[in-house]
Amino acid sequence: VQIAILLFDHVTALDAVGPYEVLSRVPGVEVVFVGERLGPVRTDVGSLGLVVDATLAEVPAPDVVVVSGGYGQTVHMADGPVHEWLRAADVRTTWTTSVCTGALILAAAGLLQGRRATTHWLAAGQLADWGAQYADERVVVDGKYMTAAGVSSGLDMGLTLAAHVAGADVAQAIQLGIEYAPQPPFQAGSPTTASDPVVDLVRTLEGQILRGEALG
Amino acid sequence: VQIAILLFDHVTALDAVGPYEVLSRVPGVEVVFVGERLGPVRTDVGSLGLVVDATLAEVPAPDVVVVSGGYGQTVHMADGPVHEWLRAADVRTTWTTSVCTGALILAAAGLLQGRRATTHWLAAGQLADWGAQYADERVVVDGKYMTAAGVSSGLDMGLTLAAHVAGADVAQAIQLGIEYAPQPPFQAGSPTTASDPVVDLVRTLEGQILRGEALG
Repeated sequence: VQIAILLFDHVTALDAVGPYEVLSRVPGVEVVFVGERLGPVRTDVGSLGLVVDATLAEVPAPDVVVVSGGYGQTVHMADGPVHEWLRAADVRTTWTTSVCTGALILAAAGLLQGRRATTHWLAAGQLADWGAQYADERVVVDGKYMTAAGVSSGLDMGLTLAAHVAGADVAQAIQLGIEYAPQPPFQAGSPTTASDPVVDLVRTLEGQILRGEALG
Repeated sequence: VQIAILLFDHVTALDAVGPYEVLSRVPGVEVVFVGERLGPVRTDVGSLGLVVDATLAEVPAPDVVVVSGGYGQTVHMADGPVHEWLRAADVRTTWTTSVCTGALILAAAGLLQGRRATTHWLAAGQLADWGAQYADERVVVDGKYMTAAGVSSGLDMGLTLAAHVAGADVAQAIQLGIEYAPQPPFQAGSPTTASDPVVDLVRTLEGQILRGEALG
């Protein structure tokens, strides 16, 4: 099973690393980080380089595709090499997936037309604009399309996908291996549980937050 | 505020990327990935390259140090450049922290003597052997030393640290920005909640799991 995780400049690191950390531990899985050019991309906030190990052309038929988000997504909304690769790969994938605003790229490439899907809560309207049916859930499965909500939800998606690919026992062993028994110190991870001032702050600073700029 | 995250070959990516994803969004914070040599290190499972942007000598006095884990930790248990850097930096840090088996490196460098600390549940005994007082908690604070449990706990530590550095409102805004409202599909993230067969599987395959090899 070959899993291709798409990287690009200004990607959000955790969008890619969450699913990778789970899926790379599934027996028989090969994870490969792909992109338009070999070598490092810089993340949204700029402070980390993640290495693209294979070009799109080198990985034409992965079994699973994972499309990360981050504000660099905005330059991959027009037709081009990334869309062409996604559409060609999607013909043969067993799973086509995304994390965060990666869903917008899938939708713009025409792969989520009429499908239930999710994305970062701030991007819900955009996803609907591109023809998908936005669902306010953490991980959404519609046929072979699996989409996850914002950034950290890629961990939950990774475990869900691992269970589909290798069974619940393997997924649970990986969960225990990475000690994923989350204890957030606050209950602010969703607009329905965060305080109004915190939601207002994030909405006001949406642009900066998507670009990883200062919040305060 | 300068935050140095230590990378080395065979690091566990999420150990570093979890705290980074939170802390890099704190206003006024500069995150820098440091290591013995510039350029990419490969992660424990080998399928991802993370870029070291500064040598240890280039970042002599960070305000916060984050030590990642992963099975590459085993080669940093002996005295050497990493220990020397940690001890010198620690003199001036406001926070000295670790994720997963990164705590073993801190302990081996002599920085956790007699302190309450945590690490990956499989490494609890080793942490005690190195003179720390193991606490079975997700994030442990003892003075300026903050340690987190296995791999994914770095997200919880990052938010805890962000609140200390910049206040609860900023930490909560970041939590909402990365939509950290976890919904693991299983309750297997801790040896106290995973089924006995899953715990046995992970214990039996401990070596392979730490090296990111096949679990099944």
